[in-house]
Amino acid sequence: MCGIIGVCNNKEAAKLAFLGLYALQHRGEESVGIVTFDGKEIMGKKDTGLVADVFDEKSLESLKGRAAIGHCRYSTTGSSTLKNIQPFLAVHKNKPIAVAHNGNLTNTEELYDKLEEAGSIFQTSMDSEIIVHLLARTRNGNKKKWVIDVLRQLEGAFSLILLIDDTIVGVRDPHGFRPLCLGKKDGHYLLASESCALDLTFAEFVREIEPGEVVFINKDKIESVFMNEEKPAVISHCIFENIYFARPDSFIFNENVYNVRKKLGAQLAKENNIDADFVMAIPDSGNYAAVGFAQEAGLPFEIGIVRNHYIGRTFIQPTQFLRDFRVRVKLNPIRSVLEEKKIIIVEDSIVRGTTSRSRVAELRKAGAKEIHMRISCPPIISPCFYGIDFPDKKELIASSRTVKEIADFIEVDSLEYLSLEGMLSVMKDSRNFCHACFTGEYPVKIPSNKSKYLLE
Amino acid sequence: MCGIIGVCNNKEAAKLAFLGLYALQHRGEESVGIVTFDGKEIMGKKDTGLVADVFDEKSLESLKGRAAIGHCRYSTTGSSTLKNIQPFLAVHKNKPIAVAHNGNLTNTEELYDKLEEAGSIFQTSMDSEIIVHLLARTRNGNKKKWVIDVLRQLEGAFSLILLIDDTIVGVRDPHGFRPLCLGKKDGHYLLASESCALDLTFAEFVREIEPGEVVFINKDKIESVFMNEEKPAVISHCIFENIYFARPDSFIFNENVYNVRKKLGAQLAKENNIDADFVMAIPDSGNYAAVGFAQEAGLPFEIGIVRNHYIGRTFIQPTQFLRDFRVRVKLNPIRSVLEEKKIIIVEDSIVRGTTSRSRVAELRKAGAKEIHMRISCPPIISPCFYGIDFPDKKELIASSRTVKEIADFIEVDSLEYLSLEGMLSVMKDSRNFCHACFTGEYPVKIPSNKSKYLLE
Amino acid sequence: MCGIIGVCNNKEAAKLAFLGLYALQHRGEESVGIVTFDGKEIMGKKDTGLVADVFDEKSLESLKGRAAIGHCRYSTTGSSTLKNIQPFLAVHKNKPIAVAHNGNLTNTEELYDKLEEAGSIFQTSMDSEIIVHLLARTRNGNKKKWVIDVLRQLEGAFSLILLIDDTIVGVRDPHGFRPLCLGKKDGHYLLASESCALDLTFAEFVREIEPGEVVFINKDKIESVFMNEEKPAVISHCIFENIYFARPDSFIFNENVYNVRKKLGAQLAKENNIDADFVMAIPDSGNYAAVGFAQEAGLPFEIGIVRNHYIGRTFIQPTQFLRDFRVRVKLNPIRSVLEEKKIIIVEDSIVRGTTSRSRVAELRKAGAKEIHMRISCPPIISPCFYGIDFPDKKELIASSRTVKEIADFIEVDSLEYLSLEGMLSVMKDSRNFCHACFTGEYPVKIPSNKSKYLLE
Amino acid sequence: MCGIIGVCNNKEAAKLAFLGLYALQHRGEESVGIVTFDGKEIMGKKDTGLVADVFDEKSLESLKGRAAIGHCRYSTTGSSTLKNIQPFLAVHKNKPIAVAHNGNLTNTEELYDKLEEAGSIFQTSMDSEIIVHLLARTRNGNKKKWVIDVLRQLEGAFSLILLIDDTIVGVRDPHGFRPLCLGKKDGHYLLASESCALDLTFAEFVREIEPGEVVFINKDKIESVFMNEEKPAVISHCIFENIYFARPDSFIFNENVYNVRKKLGAQLAKENNIDADFVMAIPDSGNYAAVGFAQEAGLPFEIGIVRNHYIGRTFIQPTQFLRDFRVRVKLNPIRSVLEEKKIIIVEDSIVRGTTSRSRVAELRKAGAKEIHMRISCPPIISPCFYGIDFPDKKELIASSRTVKEIADFIEVDSLEYLSLEGMLSVMKDSRNFCHACFTGEYPVKIPSNKSKYLLE
Repeated sequence: MCGIIGVCNNKEAAKLAFLGLYALQHRGEESVGIVTFDGKEIMGKKDTGLVADVFDEKSLESLKGRAAIGHCRYSTTGSSTLKNIQPFLAVHKNKPIAVAHNGNLTNTEELYDKLEEAGSIFQTSMDSEIIVHLLARTRNGNKKKWVIDVLRQLEGAFSLILLIDDTIVGVRDPHGFRPLCLGKKDGHYLLASESCALDLTFAEFVREIEPGEVVFINKDKIESVFMNEEKPAVISHCIFENIYFARPDSFIFNENVYNVRKKLGAQLAKENNIDADFVMAIPDSGNYAAVGFAQEAGLPFEIGIVRNHYIGRTFIQPTQFLRDFRVRVKLNPIRSVLEEKKIIIVEDSIVRGTTSRSRVAELRKAGAKEIHMRISCPPIISPCFYGIDFPDKKELIASSRTVKEIADFIEVDSLEYLSLEGMLSVMKDSRNFCHACFTGEYPVKIPSNKSKYLLE
Repeated sequence: MCGIIGVCNNKEAAKLAFLGLYALQHRGEESVGIVTFDGKEIMGKKDTGLVADVFDEKSLESLKGRAAIGHCRYSTTGSSTLKNIQPFLAVHKNKPIAVAHNGNLTNTEELYDKLEEAGSIFQTSMDSEIIVHLLARTRNGNKKKWVIDVLRQLEGAFSLILLIDDTIVGVRDPHGFRPLCLGKKDGHYLLASESCALDLTFAEFVREIEPGEVVFINKDKIESVFMNEEKPAVISHCIFENIYFARPDSFIFNENVYNVRKKLGAQLAKENNIDADFVMAIPDSGNYAAVGFAQEAGLPFEIGIVRNHYIGRTFIQPTQFLRDFRVRVKLNPIRSVLEEKKIIIVEDSIVRGTTSRSRVAELRKAGAKEIHMRISCPPIISPCFYGIDFPDKKELIASSRTVKEIADFIEVDSLEYLSLEGMLSVMKDSRNFCHACFTGEYPVKIPSNKSKYLLE
Repeated sequence: MCGIIGVCNNKEAAKLAFLGLYALQHRGEESVGIVTFDGKEIMGKKDTGLVADVFDEKSLESLKGRAAIGHCRYSTTGSSTLKNIQPFLAVHKNKPIAVAHNGNLTNTEELYDKLEEAGSIFQTSMDSEIIVHLLARTRNGNKKKWVIDVLRQLEGAFSLILLIDDTIVGVRDPHGFRPLCLGKKDGHYLLASESCALDLTFAEFVREIEPGEVVFINKDKIESVFMNEEKPAVISHCIFENIYFARPDSFIFNENVYNVRKKLGAQLAKENNIDADFVMAIPDSGNYAAVGFAQEAGLPFEIGIVRNHYIGRTFIQPTQFLRDFRVRVKLNPIRSVLEEKKIIIVEDSIVRGTTSRSRVAELRKAGAKEIHMRISCPPIISPCFYGIDFPDKKELIASSRTVKEIADFIEVDSLEYLSLEGMLSVMKDSRNFCHACFTGEYPVKIPSNKSKYLLE
Repeated sequence: MCGIIGVCNNKEAAKLAFLGLYALQHRGEESVGIVTFDGKEIMGKKDTGLVADVFDEKSLESLKGRAAIGHCRYSTTGSSTLKNIQPFLAVHKNKPIAVAHNGNLTNTEELYDKLEEAGSIFQTSMDSEIIVHLLARTRNGNKKKWVIDVLRQLEGAFSLILLIDDTIVGVRDPHGFRPLCLGKKDGHYLLASESCALDLTFAEFVREIEPGEVVFINKDKIESVFMNEEKPAVISHCIFENIYFARPDSFIFNENVYNVRKKLGAQLAKENNIDADFVMAIPDSGNYAAVGFAQEAGLPFEIGIVRNHYIGRTFIQPTQFLRDFRVRVKLNPIRSVLEEKKIIIVEDSIVRGTTSRSRVAELRKAGAKEIHMRISCPPIISPCFYGIDFPDKKELIASSRTVKEIADFIEVDSLEYLSLEGMLSVMKDSRNFCHACFTGEYPVKIPSNKSKYLLE
C-alpha cells in the first residue's frame, strides 16, 4: 500500500510531486519522501507523517531540479523507522539511483542473501534498497539494457518509478498487479499510481503503463521497452484496488473506479435485494456502491451517519489504540433519520468484522429497528502477498466463519456478500484480475517456507 | 465561533472534556484548552492546534480532578497567540476562576477601560479575561448573588461555562444567541455547546439551557436562576448555526439540525426548481439540503465530487494561502458522472463567492454542460457582531451585488437563493431567530463608533 | 540569585541586554528573559535555559525598541515554570509595566493577601508580579511620586530595574543588599547587577546606585531620588557576593572583587599557614584566594586539577542528579603533579561538604600524600532570606558540626576557616556588610512564622 | 580531530562509552555517536551537538549490550550532516560492522573509485564508510586475516576502533600519528584516544597501542597482531597533540601532556626571557606552559583574564560568526591586575593571528603598558593532512610573514617562538614526531593533485 509519483523536465518538479502525493495520500499515511536532481546536486526530504505535515513551501523550494520522484507509504515490508522511508536513494558516481516502489517482491530473501554474500551492506529492510544495489552492481554500458537485466531478476508485484542519473524510469511488473499511469503537463511527462494525482497537478491523462512495460523518460523523450519478449500468460490486476483501495475519481485498469463501484452495488442489489425504508452507506467508502444499490433497487438513498472530518481513514492506522479511538469518534448516527426504520447498509468489505460490529451496535442505539448489511465483494479469506496489508489469515473473519456466523457476530438481521461470479461479471475483462484474497489462488509463487509476517 | 464543554463530578472529567471537544472541533480548529480542579490543585493545558493533536493519553492522565471545563476556538476577538487560548484561568485565593466563552460581548471596551482604570492588569485581549477580573473583584458573600451581579454587566452574545471553586456554572445570555445544552452521564451533569458532544461522551441529552438562565452545578446538585426577573422581549437564536455552523447530528434551538437543513432544501426546491439530470452537493456541508431538495424535486441525488479526507473545513482556515491551497486539493470532480450533464448544485451559503466560483470552474472543466446553483439561505449582506466570523462587509459578495451579478461572477447558468420568508417558515418558532446577517437588523446594540475589526 | 540589566535610548537595546545577561550568566543559569518597548509595541521573549541558548540573532532582531530590560535567574521564590520567568510584564493602558528583580522580599505574603482581597488575580508566584500589581493600582499623577509610594511598601532585599512606559527605573533597597551599577555607552545609560556586564557591552562604568536610591532614566535624562528622607541606620551589603557569587572582574560595593578575594586569601595565609610542597585551588572559584595565599605564604602556586570546560558551575544546578554527575566529570586531578605531595587546597566556601569530600577523595586516589584545606570565609551556619539560595539550615554542614568534625567528614589532614574578624578586616568598610549566614544576625526582620522554604 | 572509545564485555558499556566521550569532548564538539551490540540486536544513537546534550539517562538505558564503540568529531572529511556522524555502522549478515575513526586517510579517493566501480553505494562521504565497505567485501574465513588484509590497503593517519560481530578491534596506523590507549576496568578492556577517558570511567591505564598494532578483544581475551611484519622506518606522532590538542591530564606518546607543556614553557623561557612584572596566560590552554615559563624565569604567575565558563573552546567552532562572538564574550581582562604593568603572555600557538590580535587589543584597553608574547612552539607554516583541521595554507599567518611582521600584526611589543630544536629537545624521543606543520616535511605521501580542501 503505497503511492508513487514521478515528474520530468519541469522546473517545479518537487511541487508537482508534492501535489501528486497529496492526491495519493489514501495509499499511505505513514511516511512520505521526495527526491530531486538538478543535474548536479541531489536533494531529498523524507519523514513520517502526512504529506501536508512533512512538506511546507520552504522545504519544497529547497528541493531544486527538473526531475523528482516521490513516495507515500504504509509499511508492509520493513519496520517503520525513519531510514525505511522511500524513495531509497543512493549517490553512485555522483549521480542518483533512487527507487520508489509500490507492491511487494516475493523473492526478497534470495536477492538479499546473494547481495550480502557479495559484500553489499544494507541500510534498511526495504525491497527498494535491494533494487538499488542490483542497479549499482549491474550498471555497465547501455542503460536500457542493464536496467532491464535487473528488473528481470525481480518477482512479485512491483510498480516502480526510478530516478537514474537524469532519467525517470516507469516500470510495471509483467502481471500488472498495481496501477501506474502516464500523464502530460505542458508537454512534459509525469508518472503516478493513480490518475487522481494527474488531476491535482492539472496534468492530462495519457494512458496506463502496460504490464511488463518499462518507459525511459529523458527530458521530453519517452522510450517504451518490454521486460520480456513474449507477453505474460496471466494479467493479475488487484481487484481490491477497485473495491476499496483506489480513489473513486481515478481511472485504473482501463476503467473509472466510481463506475466499477456503482456497478458492484447494482449487481449486489440484483443478487440480494430485500425491501427496506432506505439504503445508506457507512461513509465515505461505501457511498458509491450504496448509490448503485439504491438506484437498482428503487429505494431512497439516505445519509444516516455524520462523518467527523478531523480524522483519517480507519483502515490504515498503525496501532490498535488509535484504531479503537478513531472508530469511536469518527461517525455519529443521526437518531432522527434512523429511529424505528428498517435499513439496508452497503459496505465495501469486511476484514476483521470488529469495526462493522461496533457500528451496527451504534446504529441500534440510535433507534434502527432492522439492519440488513450487504457487502459489495465476496468474503476475504486469504492474505495478500502483493502489497495489500490485510491482517494475518487467522484475523480475517471470513477465513474461519460462515456468512451466517459472521452475521451473528456483527449482529445484523441479515448479511449477504456479492458472489465471485457477480463481482467479476461487471469487470471489463474478468480474466485479468487477481482474486487471491477471495479464493487463495495466487497467480505468482509466494515465499515458500515463511509467512509474510516473518519476512521482516 | 467556539465550542465549550463542562464536566462535573466525574473521575474522568478531563477525558470526557476531551471527547466533547473532539465532537465540537468544527466550532473552532485554531486552539484548544482544558482546565481541571481536584479540590486542591488546579491543572490545565492549552495550545494551538486540533484537539487530537494537542492532547494525548498522557496529558489527559495528568489533568486530574472531578471537574473540568474545555474550549476550542477560532479567534474572533483577541489575536491568536498562545496566551489568548481559552479557558482563561486565574487562581484566586487558591481556588480557580476559569471561563470558557462562546460568543462576542458588545461592551468589551467599556468594561476593559473601567477595570484598567482601577488597576487591573491584563494578560490577554480576550472577553473571557474581563469576565474573570469582574468575578475576582466582585467576589463577596453568596456565590449565586455575586456571579449574577457580574453577568448582568455583560452585553452581547455569551454562552459561558465557568469553573469557580468546585462549582461549574452554565450561562446563556438573555437573547439566547448561541446554543448550550445540559446532559447527564451516570447521574452527573455535563454542559456542551451542542448535543453531538453528549453523544460522543455517551451522555444523555437532558435539555437546552434557556436564554437568560444560569445553572450552578456542585457535585450532583443543580440550581437554576435567571439573570433577570422578567423574560427578555426578544429571543435571537443564531439562524446561521442551523444553516451551516452546527453539526447536522446536533439538537439545538429545539430542533434537530439535519431536519432543519432537509426542510430548507425542500423549501428551496419549492421556490426554485428547474429540470435537470440530477441534484448534487458540494460535500459535505451541502449534502443535507441537497437530499431534501432532490426528494422534493423528484430528481436523482448523485455524488459528483470526491472529497479528500486529509483536509479540514475550508471555511475556518486562518490564512489566505492555506485557504487557496486547500480549495484546490480538497474536492475532485468525477468526469464520468458530470460529462455532458445538466446539474443542480445545492450549497448552504455564499460568503465571498470566490470558492463557489473556483468550484464551478472545476465542474465545467470536468465536462458539466449546465450548472444551476441553489442556495439554502438568503444573501448574506451584513457582518455578525455576535460570534460568527464573517469577513468584513465589503468582502461579502451579496452586500454590493445583485443575484444576477453574483451568478455572472461565479459563472453559473442560473442562481437562486432561498427567500427570507421561506427560510423562517420552516423554523419551529420563526420569531425567535436573529437574521441580522441577511437583513442588517441587529437585535442588540452593536459597538457604536467602531467596526468589529477595530476592537482588537 | 539573579542578574538584571537595563538599557536606555539605544537602537540595539535588545542586543546590549543580551550581551549584558551573557556576562551575568553566573548569577542565574535556569531561565532568562528580555522585554523591549519601541514607543508603540511591547515585545518580549523568555524561556528556560542559558542566555546563549534562548536567544539567537533572529530573536534579538525581532525585539525592537530603544528601551530594554533583562533578567537571568536561579529560582528562589516561585516554582520554575515558564510563566515564572522574569521580567514580569504587564501591558497597562497600552504601555508596559515590567519588573526585573534581584533579591528576596520579606513581606511577600502580606502584600499578596492584601492584593488578592482587593480582587487582583495572579499569573505567577513571583515577587515581581506583586510589584507590578502595586504599580498598576497606585498609578496616579506624578510618576516619581507613585513609584516611590509603591517602593516604600517593599521590605527585604531588592535591586530592581523597572520599565514603566518609556522610562527605565533603577532601584536599590535602603540596605543595599544586592549590587546595582550605572554605566554609559555613547552618551546613553545602562543599569546592571555587576560591572562585568558593562565591560561586555563596551560601556563605561559610571558609579554604583546607592542604597535607597531610585534613578529615573528617560531618554538621556537621569533623575535621582531617595526612597526615604533620612539615610538608613544600617548598610548591609551581601559579603557572599564578594566571597563567591560575583565575578572576579566586577567592581561592586566600592571595590574590585578580585582584589578582595586575593586579600581574603592573604589574610587566610596569615591566620593559618603551614609548610607544604605547593598551594593549589579547586578551579576556578578558588583560584583568586589561592594566588593571594601562595604569595603571602611564599609557596609555589600549581595547577593540580584540569577543568573540563563543557560544564557550568556546580553550585547552581537545579537537580541532585545533575549535580552529582557534573561533580564527577568536571575536574580531573593530574597524577604527575600530585603524586607523593603535601598540598594546601584553598577553597572559597563549604556549603554541604559533600562536594569537598568527593574532591578530596579524588585527590587522594591521584596520589596526594597530605591534604590541608583552607577556606577563605568563616563557617556558614544560617540560611539567607535576602536572595542567596543556600540549602536548608540542617543541610549546612557547619550548622551542626565543629571544624574538627567537618575535617573528619571531608577527610583532610587539616582544615581551617578564615575568622569573622579577619574577613571583615580586609573590607573597605567592615560595618557595611551583612554576615547573617556566618552569625545568624539578620539585619532585616525575616518572615516570622515560616521557614523560607514554606514561602512557596 | 576526533575522539574514539571502545568498551568490551561490560553490562554498562553504553554508559562507559558516554563517560569516555565526555572526557574526550575537546577532540570534537560537533557531533557524537555510540553503537552497541548485545549479541542479537544492534543499537545506536548519534546526533550533532555535545555529548551531554545528545545523550541522557533514558537514551543510554536503551543502548543495551556488553560491547560499545563511540566517537565524537569535528568534521574534517565529509560534510557535517546527520548521516556523516560516526561511528559508521552496517548490519552485515545480522551482525554489526562498525567503525570509529580518528585521523585522515590519504588514499580515500582511490579506494572510493574502486569500490564504486564494483557497485558499492555510499551513504556518506566519510573515510569510515569506505573501511566498512572494504571489510564487508573482504570478509571470508579467518577474521584476523581478512581484517588485516583490509587495514593494509589504508594509507595515512588512522587510529580505529572497530566493532565486528562481538569483537572489538583497536588499530593504530604504522606511523602512530594519533594516540590510542588500552585500559582495564573490573578485568575487562577499554580502548580510548586519550588516557583521560580512562580516568573518567574509573578504569586503569594499561598501555598505549603501538604503531602498526592491531588488538582483537573478544570478551576478556585480547590478541595482538602487527599489520606488517617488519617495523616501519618512521614513527610520526603528532607533536601538536602535545602542544595544544590533547588534554593536559592525558598520558600519550609515552609521556604526560602536562609535563611536556611545562617543559616547553621552561625551554621557551631559556631561549627567550626578558624582565617583566609577571607572567600570565590566555586561559586555559596557555596556563601550563606559562607556569613552566614563570618557574624557569623566576617571575610571578598571575591571573589577568577571567574566563566565562558558559562557552566552549574557541579553536573548534565551525562558523566564523560564532567564533567572533565567542572571542568577544569568552575572556574579560581584569583592569586592577593589568593596569600600568609590563607583562609576558605565554600562548601555545598562533594559527591565523586574528584571535591573538584581538586579545592583545583588549589587554591594552584594560591598561597593560607593555605586552611581550611568547609562543611554546615554532611558527605553523603548512597544513596537516593527517587529521588536524588547520585552515588553508594561505590563512596560516606564519606561512607568509616573518616573526617581526606577525608581531606588528598582532601589535605586541615583542614576539618570540620556541625553536624547532628546542621543542624537539624536550621530547622523550625527538625522532618519533611528525613536525610537518612547522617544516612542510610530510612523512606519508599526501594526495598528489588536490588540496585537502578539494577532497570533499
